Amino acid sequence: MHKKPLILITNDDGITAPGIRTLIKVMNTIGDVIVVAPDSPQSGMGHAITIDTTLHCKQEHIDDGPQTEYSTSGTPADCIKLAVREIIGRKPDLCVSGVNHGSNSSINVIYSGTMSAAIEAGIEGIPAIGFSLLDYSWEANFEPIEAFIKSITTKVLEKGLPHGIVLNVNFPKLEKDAIKGFKICRQANANWVEEFDKRKNPQGKDYYWLTGKFVNFDKGEDTDEWALKQGYISVVPVQFDLTAHHFIQQLNTWSLDD
Amino acid sequence: MHKKPLILITNDDGITAPGIRTLIKVMNTIGDVIVVAPDSPQSGMGHAITIDTTLHCKQEHIDDGPQTEYSTSGTPADCIKLAVREIIGRKPDLCVSGVNHGSNSSINVIYSGTMSAAIEAGIEGIPAIGFSLLDYSWEANFEPIEAFIKSITTKVLEKGLPHGIVLNVNFPKLEKDAIKGFKICRQANANWVEEFDKRKNPQGKDYYWLTGKFVNFDKGEDTDEWALKQGYISVVPVQFDLTAHHFIQQLNTWSLDD
Repeated sequence: MHKKPLILITNDDGITAPGIRTLIKVMNTIGDVIVVAPDSPQSGMGHAITIDTTLHCKQEHIDDGPQTEYSTSGTPADCIKLAVREIIGRKPDLCVSGVNHGSNSSINVIYSGTMSAAIEAGIEGIPAIGFSLLDYSWEANFEPIEAFIKSITTKVLEKGLPHGIVLNVNFPKLEKDAIKGFKICRQANANWVEEFDKRKNPQGKDYYWLTGKFVNFDKGEDTDEWALKQGYISVVPVQFDLTAHHFIQQLNTWSLDD
Repeated sequence: MHKKPLILITNDDGITAPGIRTLIKVMNTIGDVIVVAPDSPQSGMGHAITIDTTLHCKQEHIDDGPQTEYSTSGTPADCIKLAVREIIGRKPDLCVSGVNHGSNSSINVIYSGTMSAAIEAGIEGIPAIGFSLLDYSWEANFEPIEAFIKSITTKVLEKGLPHGIVLNVNFPKLEKDAIKGFKICRQANANWVEEFDKRKNPQGKDYYWLTGKFVNFDKGEDTDEWALKQGYISVVPVQFDLTAHHFIQQLNTWSLDD
């Protein structure tokens, strides 16, 4: 009989978010589950880590089930570090992060706490997947995507992932029957065009809210944005070697030491 | 006569840090300088952005010189967004970030607020360079690297950078004559092995400090770690398309929809 895999779950919307509760429910059908997640929302935290302040960690019982759960005062990346070094004391067989309430496709991968947790796990040498649903609502319906989460997770446990690569999986906001299946993609060349909402506080001092419009500059039919628009689940293999290897040769012609 | 380039400066150690004061001094000899930097240290912030709270921004006069300066309550990435959309109202000709007090070589690029500011500028289509000195001390000596900062900045203004690429420049902690010059590198495969310092607060509750040991697994002589050890300035071209393009073909054989 096979030993059940040990699965570490985290997210960036906080331990009580419906998205992570869905992920726990699905992972309980696959392996032994340990949850180490932020005690409050950490969206937009990117790959932040906590070095200037202390970290707290507390066992939780949020809903019934065989999983063990801990909340921490840290960022998603901190949660992975704490889980591996202090709480579990060894590498789990898999790390899954999410399900994020909202898209982490294209350039959003850079700002995403959900994906930074998956990347942190990847840095530690743990196979990892970040899941996101294209619905920002706290009341988002995760039921249509449960079977898909199970099938890709099972596949990653079976096949493994090469060192240095984690998966970024985004789901369209569709009913189950309308989802066309998985599509392997590249990150679209898209970004946010910011618009700051400038206001005055009651004392007359200016302040700003960051808002913005998402703009896709990429007409390619091999991108995550294209796949999601067509009703597919986008799967982007993500790496954390940021070197632009293709530019090294040209940079060597610059004669910087002259 | 050429028009002077408009140079945007930011950092993650805060607007009063000696590292950014050095960068301002050097950039004042090259172009018109505008500084938009965090009002307090933001180290380890990765690519965090501020979406759950408001941003403040205030004009500053910290030391004499022709530069215009603003401090903000935001992260390094926020500073770039605020500068481009609100303060300058257009793209500067160049963005430089730093000089960071401490290394941003190898995997540190992922956690670095200094580099996330440069990357944010790159996303906006602005040529950008992040500078870091391998000395964490607030009293670090930046004088030996001033001429090198000027020469590579001038080169980037002359040559430009392809869209999607920014430079990550790290300086060894050496006297000027001991620095061997620039070396174009790839990001070393290295990471932090965390050790949490577990303590009890006066009320008897556990808390943690994140500490760790940097471990370089990479024996390559083309890496930033190798170059810095040999006394070179490492220059790594960094991209923010995180797609692991080389793994797409293999992932397509996984039959995820079966």
